[in-house]
Amino acid sequence: MPRYYRYLEELRAEGVDRISSGDLSRLMNVTASQIRQDLNNFGGFGQQGYGYNVDYLHDEIAKILGLTRVHPVILIGVGNLGQAISNYVHFSRLSFEIAGLFDINEKLKGREVAGTKIRTYDELPDFLKSHEVDIAALTIPKVHAQDVADDVIKNGVHAIWNFTHVDLVVPDDVVVENVHLSDSLMQLSYNLTEREAETSSDEE
Amino acid sequence: MPRYYRYLEELRAEGVDRISSGDLSRLMNVTASQIRQDLNNFGGFGQQGYGYNVDYLHDEIAKILGLTRVHPVILIGVGNLGQAISNYVHFSRLSFEIAGLFDINEKLKGREVAGTKIRTYDELPDFLKSHEVDIAALTIPKVHAQDVADDVIKNGVHAIWNFTHVDLVVPDDVVVENVHLSDSLMQLSYNLTEREAETSSDEE
Repeated sequence: MPRYYRYLEELRAEGVDRISSGDLSRLMNVTASQIRQDLNNFGGFGQQGYGYNVDYLHDEIAKILGLTRVHPVILIGVGNLGQAISNYVHFSRLSFEIAGLFDINEKLKGREVAGTKIRTYDELPDFLKSHEVDIAALTIPKVHAQDVADDVIKNGVHAIWNFTHVDLVVPDDVVVENVHLSDSLMQLSYNLTEREAETSSDEE
Repeated sequence: MPRYYRYLEELRAEGVDRISSGDLSRLMNVTASQIRQDLNNFGGFGQQGYGYNVDYLHDEIAKILGLTRVHPVILIGVGNLGQAISNYVHFSRLSFEIAGLFDINEKLKGREVAGTKIRTYDELPDFLKSHEVDIAALTIPKVHAQDVADDVIKNGVHAIWNFTHVDLVVPDDVVVENVHLSDSLMQLSYNLTEREAETSSDEE
């Protein structure tokens, strides 16, 4: 669904009003029948011989993805990666906004990143009592990951965007989305190594 | 495989010599039969009643993942995200090293990030002729993504770590690993929205 949304955003930006499942299929490199199946699951947007109305489909998928309201995000751990992610969320023009930044390092207190002042970690519980927060992004060393996850969950956050290399243990009503950069890099190394092995065996 | 490697790294760091598939299964939250199936595919590391030798399994998986040699990485686009990723690669103690940093902005030339001086983008072709580079990380605006991918591929790079929100079109012998941060954030929003809908219908 996020991928459909991304393509529909672009089509809309290019001023495309409607698109056939065949054209969308070529654009996204997915079979037309897969597209019909995916989109029919979400309420049958397409009409035979007419194609999909880009605006309508875009807005329906936005609703499904929960992008029709703004999600307040806090970020914990304002190092290099944390600053990059804060700026990314701030400038992405998606339905997410940085509500608070927290770091255990007292020296960072008051410094501004992505238009938001950094708070110390001990301010977190009070902050969460007085602010509605949908998502906590964790950009902290892995040794602290589970403790910090427990803290934010205890204080009512139900979604974690996890950049630490830890598979967090959370209650059933909490959703976690992992961005494991090292796994991704190792996967790339694996695929490259496999490809090289294939190439050299082709040459034999 | 990267996930197995990550857990085996930790077990090794904790001084664990051997582990049964049952214990590994509980630790990784995967069924024991899945573990036996995954690891037997890679040469049958386990012995009945003995479990897996952590060091041996770690090293074998490192070989499979291509981590027994250092992969030189160049990064193109040294903005916020690019700097964070450069530092991440530099400090990750994985088998990857930053070989070069490139940016289209002339003003950044000579500035140092992750111990490496930034070069201008027009230096890229000559650099690739005289340096062996395995991986190009793209942390650039999406409008430039396909052109830059074409440039690095033309100059002999066969693996792309793609942080742009573009599905790159590449030849068959090039591998791409995508880190689509906005897709990940939208997936989180979707799961959160789904969960909230379930919770409210439970309460009805």
